[in-house]
Amino acid sequence: MTFDFSTAVKPNLPAPAAAPWNGYPPYNFVGGHNDPDSLPIEKLTRACTEVLQREGKTLSTYSLDSGPQGYLPLREFLVDKLYNYAGIECTADQILLNSGSLQAIDLINEALLGPSDTVIIEASNYGGVITRLNRLNVNIVTVTVDEHGMQTDHLATTLATLADNGTRPAYIYTIPTVHNPTGTIMSHERREQLISLAVEYNVPVFEDECYADLIWDGQRPPALYALDSSNRVIHVGSFSKTIAPALRVGYTVADWSLISQLLALKTDAGSGALEQMLLAEYCRDHFDKHLATLNKNLQAKLEVLCNAIDREFGTTAEYTVPPGGIFLWVKLPDAVNTTQLAAAAEAEGVSINPGNEWSLQSDAAQHLRLCFANPDIATIETGIKKLAQICHREFGVPEFTGNTPNKQ
Amino acid sequence: MTFDFSTAVKPNLPAPAAAPWNGYPPYNFVGGHNDPDSLPIEKLTRACTEVLQREGKTLSTYSLDSGPQGYLPLREFLVDKLYNYAGIECTADQILLNSGSLQAIDLINEALLGPSDTVIIEASNYGGVITRLNRLNVNIVTVTVDEHGMQTDHLATTLATLADNGTRPAYIYTIPTVHNPTGTIMSHERREQLISLAVEYNVPVFEDECYADLIWDGQRPPALYALDSSNRVIHVGSFSKTIAPALRVGYTVADWSLISQLLALKTDAGSGALEQMLLAEYCRDHFDKHLATLNKNLQAKLEVLCNAIDREFGTTAEYTVPPGGIFLWVKLPDAVNTTQLAAAAEAEGVSINPGNEWSLQSDAAQHLRLCFANPDIATIETGIKKLAQICHREFGVPEFTGNTPNKQ
Repeated sequence: MTFDFSTAVKPNLPAPAAAPWNGYPPYNFVGGHNDPDSLPIEKLTRACTEVLQREGKTLSTYSLDSGPQGYLPLREFLVDKLYNYAGIECTADQILLNSGSLQAIDLINEALLGPSDTVIIEASNYGGVITRLNRLNVNIVTVTVDEHGMQTDHLATTLATLADNGTRPAYIYTIPTVHNPTGTIMSHERREQLISLAVEYNVPVFEDECYADLIWDGQRPPALYALDSSNRVIHVGSFSKTIAPALRVGYTVADWSLISQLLALKTDAGSGALEQMLLAEYCRDHFDKHLATLNKNLQAKLEVLCNAIDREFGTTAEYTVPPGGIFLWVKLPDAVNTTQLAAAAEAEGVSINPGNEWSLQSDAAQHLRLCFANPDIATIETGIKKLAQICHREFGVPEFTGNTPNKQ
Repeated sequence: MTFDFSTAVKPNLPAPAAAPWNGYPPYNFVGGHNDPDSLPIEKLTRACTEVLQREGKTLSTYSLDSGPQGYLPLREFLVDKLYNYAGIECTADQILLNSGSLQAIDLINEALLGPSDTVIIEASNYGGVITRLNRLNVNIVTVTVDEHGMQTDHLATTLATLADNGTRPAYIYTIPTVHNPTGTIMSHERREQLISLAVEYNVPVFEDECYADLIWDGQRPPALYALDSSNRVIHVGSFSKTIAPALRVGYTVADWSLISQLLALKTDAGSGALEQMLLAEYCRDHFDKHLATLNKNLQAKLEVLCNAIDREFGTTAEYTVPPGGIFLWVKLPDAVNTTQLAAAAEAEGVSINPGNEWSLQSDAAQHLRLCFANPDIATIETGIKKLAQICHREFGVPEFTGNTPNKQ
């Protein structure tokens, strides 16, 4: 008799994978993948060779010669980079390198969240955050987002109502710069208001800026961390979006009173060291120039995507062209349910994020998120054409695609 | 007013780090670090260059072109390697690559353990496993270990007693090959008995073989996974001990009914891909030869350690020379408490693992674990001399060190 682990696992776990992975769909508009042609392979290879030759032997020691906070030269690069790009003043001791920013989120949640706690998040949000918070059984309170970011007047009333009920949120989670999925950048004024409200209600702020360097005009606003003088902001970032997602290197910047606790919870014997070494070696000399090129390439792909949507969906699809990032947040008419659309599209090799997974707002089901960094131009154009045809077939909209009546 | 996160964290968390890391002690006998001079830097560099040149662009995609189970060529290498070294027959779909085997342990525990569950483990054990199980509030039942590994007669009575009380353990956890900390290798007969008991009581077996390739005579016995025909064995391994600990790559081999659940729990967007690519590229051509060299070097260091202990501690220190691994499990007289010894030694730059952190047996406090792979020969010799002097000062034993009366 063979043992079936499905009879042995705990209750209430996420559903197991249905089958081993079978490749990406041909028209893949999901996931934070990046533009393969923007990857600086030659320079990365050289950097890897140099750092391995110079200090490869330190790989024989867990965490190299840098200790559990991660490779010191990479933390030192971040000290400079975060100051130059986001106005953050910190020391290497305030930085914890993580196995991607997702590990940062998990550790922060493990330190700060219990089952009965309340958190405030933006009403449309990164799907992975919503999933995590639901699994932790915390009480999620949402604040709406507009083209200037989280609506701080709504935040103010939300905090006031919670305080009236005796509830102090465990944190305010926000993606202020290139918000996921809307792509908006929080205005400076709102940033100041958010900090001031957080101080007033004595709530920590969890700032997730993993897309913040992907801004076409290069004008990244000061991070919330930089605007706060009360040590209450936890700043999280990543190299996944600027260099390569398969390199799992993210980071947390926070006061030592939190970093010290995260260190005690980080029982993984260190994050991958070679990837940290490679990034430090490469970024020190090449980050700025690479970022400028990457942003140019991403903006060009976004234009291709927007043109394709305009051509295939016409005015049926509404969106605001984002000032940066790798995704477009699109609204379709009320007749459309994007969860059903995503299922129908998946069956034909077109993968999209339905709004219900990325938003808790009432109009979530009419929204979809389209990631544009990874597919090439022809794939974007054909994929959007197919999506419009499927949408027409399933929901009758758009009525026309590609300026011709849509017949299947 | 500044925010103090120590007032905001959840209760019952592990104590925060006291201060930022400040370097390893000069005489470091703790941690699974490896021999720096055995690291094949030139060949690793070449492998890294080759794989980056050939398929570096895939780093733009989370999990490369291999999906969430990890880089397919590395899983394919493991299929061959596990068959050749440990008699394991499996397919690449039964392997999940992890961010070190510690992530494997965490995911398996998350899938299988709830707070009221019972697990069976060896009475002396890897400290990280004991810590994890305590944090999960499971009921730990121990089985004694002798020079042939876990005592299966004791396992039989333990399982019978538990069954009488209506308890079926969530798993039997064992380190059969180069047991941590005793270094013993479970005999073939005991392996068969363990599997047969696991079948009889319908209990999964969790086999942790992260040291199993470090055997001086190269005679690795068949894994429990290979001896079981009921799919109940979960096999975990690592490249940390054979190639480099700072590369965080471990793996789980199990039936799809478990791998599918672990995949659903592995929400890290993939483990570090470059380290997987490098290992696959390097190991395919060089693993066997490298392992032979590494084992030769480790055995030589073990001999240095044993000689130093004999010289400095004389018959005061009892140990069995292990057939492999990177640590020695030493017993001191009843007068010694190794937790106190470790504290006194730490203050003088000598770091050791006290037995209480690595054993739940009654004589744990007289034991210590000494890791010998990382320090060089002179460091081993001086460190053991210092340890004997400190032990003499604190506990009066050994009475003599280095064949001279021990005077401080």
